[in-house]
This record gives sequence, structure tokens and C-alpha cells, in this order.
Amino acid sequence: MTTLYGYFRSSAAYRVRIALNLKGLDYDQAPVNLVKGEQKDGDFRTRNPQGLVPVLETEDGTRLTQSLAICEYLDERHPERPLLPADAEGRARVRSLAQLIACEIHPLNNLKVLKYLVHELKVDDEAKQAWYRHWIAEGFTALEARLANEPGTGTFCHGNDPTLADICLVPQVFNAERFECDLAAYPTLRRITERCRELEAFRRAAPGEQPDAG
Amino acid sequence: MTTLYGYFRSSAAYRVRIALNLKGLDYDQAPVNLVKGEQKDGDFRTRNPQGLVPVLETEDGTRLTQSLAICEYLDERHPERPLLPADAEGRARVRSLAQLIACEIHPLNNLKVLKYLVHELKVDDEAKQAWYRHWIAEGFTALEARLANEPGTGTFCHGNDPTLADICLVPQVFNAERFECDLAAYPTLRRITERCRELEAFRRAAPGEQPDAG
Repeated sequence: MTTLYGYFRSSAAYRVRIALNLKGLDYDQAPVNLVKGEQKDGDFRTRNPQGLVPVLETEDGTRLTQSLAICEYLDERHPERPLLPADAEGRARVRSLAQLIACEIHPLNNLKVLKYLVHELKVDDEAKQAWYRHWIAEGFTALEARLANEPGTGTFCHGNDPTLADICLVPQVFNAERFECDLAAYPTLRRITERCRELEAFRRAAPGEQPDAG
Repeated sequence: MTTLYGYFRSSAAYRVRIALNLKGLDYDQAPVNLVKGEQKDGDFRTRNPQGLVPVLETEDGTRLTQSLAICEYLDERHPERPLLPADAEGRARVRSLAQLIACEIHPLNNLKVLKYLVHELKVDDEAKQAWYRHWIAEGFTALEARLANEPGTGTFCHGNDPTLADICLVPQVFNAERFECDLAAYPTLRRITERCRELEAFRRAAPGEQPDAG
């Protein structure tokens, strides 16, 4: 059985859960409590020396890291219900939307960075929240401009089927809501997120539905 | 002619230059001076609403953003001299090494983040340098552990030909050197970087070789 080492609130693990669900693949979950620091334990470090979730262990023992690389692997191994369009331009568009979130927004707002701000830079809670919201606002403004103006956008981020871009969008919106970011300026993002949330694959992947949800 | 909107010191533009050179593709360069803020000008914003480099404009007018998405597009359009291995496990490994750099290290240390630390959080120069070196050290420690221990590593990050992982590694090492990070603890990274730098495709892509180099 495929095993996903994750954490209910980790956006990166959330992405992989959506991808597994969209593909209709069964998997076990092995929760790693990031708040308790379990990702730094020796046992987990042998699975991922970087000490990050998610890690996906396939049935044959292959260990995969980095959520976007895992999603692309799943897409190559299980080509039915593709997570990327067929044409190179469409694939580049979807990947660039996914990376706008995964390389520009999420890395600045994850737990280890927020911890550094508080513990090393002695930033107070207000400044930490402002940091969080700044990178959400900057990234979502750019993303909204693209989704609202580019002809490739459909019911979902690209066309009328969910892709890797939606897989990244929904966890990032979940995080933004958790930090009480004002999303009024991003109607296209909100529309697409609502559409995704109607799908069972996205619903079952939500943090609150996971076995380790607090 | 293909046009690359970039900046000589931008790691992300540097990655695309290496990929174009490895593929043997000709391109014009349109420098965007990030220090002067030219990426925020209206003219450039129409090319990339996110106001980031690189943007690659192909001969047919297709506009591509996000460096890894651009590299994958080039690899799909020009399959000779592939930037990814043929097997799904190998492709996942290369992508995960590339993303370890592009999603975990680089986003924390780019110019807009350093500016936020200084201007908004009023961080002094010493703390800014410490921030920079912290994320380099954390990321490079994980990367070194993987490259030193995983059987997939060869002369390059994966096997004996340069891939997307090397395309990300060399610009990140260049940045680390520029910020005078101590790289003694990463012998495998240094060995692979030196090997890459022997190649014309990497040499010609180096920041100091660009038309906008100061």
C-alpha cells in the first residue's frame, strides 16, 4: 500500500492528498506532527533528510519528496484523469500557476519561517501577521490578474477540469482563511476554490477530514 | 527570435539561460533592472503581472513565466539533450532536487524578501546576513545529504548528464558565494558545481557574462 507521511495542516501534504484522490488511488496516512517537531526525529529523517513532509512511499518502496514532484510522478504513473493538459503551452501555464503559489507564496509563510521570525528576529505577533498577509496579498494579486485575464482560465484554473494549479490553489486559500486574510479582492480565486470544494477529491483532502486533525 | 526578459543576477533567469544554452537554442536578452525596480513598470507588468523575471517570449508570441515551468516547456518542445531522465522515478528525483532549491531555499533569499526584512522589519545588516546564511545552510545540508547518499547521484546531480537539478544548483551556489556562505560542509555540491562550470552552457549563462552585468 502507498503511504503518505504528512500533517493535516501542511499545504504541501494537502496538495498530495488532493492529487491521490483525483487519481482515485488508495493510500495509508502516517501523520508526522510538525508542531511537536516529529519531522526532526531520526526515524523520519531517514525517510527525508530534509525533515519535511510530505513523503510518499510507494508499494515498491520508492520514496518521493517535494509535493509538486510527487504530483507529477503520480500523473506520469497514472495518466488517467490527467493533472496537466496535453499541450506544451497549457502544461507550461498550469505549472507556472502552480509554481506562483509553491515557489512565491507558500515558502514565505510556512511554519519554519514563521518560527524564525518569532524566535530569531523577535518579531511580535502583529508583525508576523503582517508578514503573512503581505506575501498572500502580493501573490494572490498576481494570481488573480492572471486568472481573470488569461483566456486559458475556465471553470477551474485551466479549462474545465482540475489541474495541478487547482491542487496548489485550494490549500493556499485554506491557509489564507486560517490567517484571516481578506480575500475580497480575488473573486476569480474564490470562484474557482468554491468549485473545487464541491468535488469529493478536494473535500476528502481537507485538513479537518484527516486522522490527525486536532 | 525567442526573447528572455531577465536580470544578470536573478537566479531564476540564470536557470533559464542554462537551459536554453544546454538545448543549443538562440535567444535575445531584454534586461530588466530589478535593483532599479524596472520589473514594476507598466510595460513589463503587461508581460508578467507578477512583476518578476524571467519571462520567456517565444517566436510565436507565447509568454512563459516561472523558471522551472519554462525549463520543462523547453524540454518538451526540444526533446534532444533532455533535462530530465526517461524513467518516472528518476524524473521525480530530479524534480525534487530542483524543487528543494527552488521552493525551499531561493524564495527566502531573493531580493524582495531581503528588502522586506530591511524596510518593514527594520532588521540590521548582520541579522539579514544571518537570515540568508541560515536558509542556505538548512537547504544545502539537506541537499548534500541526499546527493552524497542517494545512488542516483553521478558526475552530476543525477547520473552523468546535466539535468534540471544542476540547472538549479549552480545559480544557488553562485548566490551563496556572493553572500560569502561557508560551503566547506558540502563537498558533493561543490564537486558537482565545479563539473557544471566546465561546460560552455553553464559558463555562458553566468551572471558576469551577461550584457547587463554591472
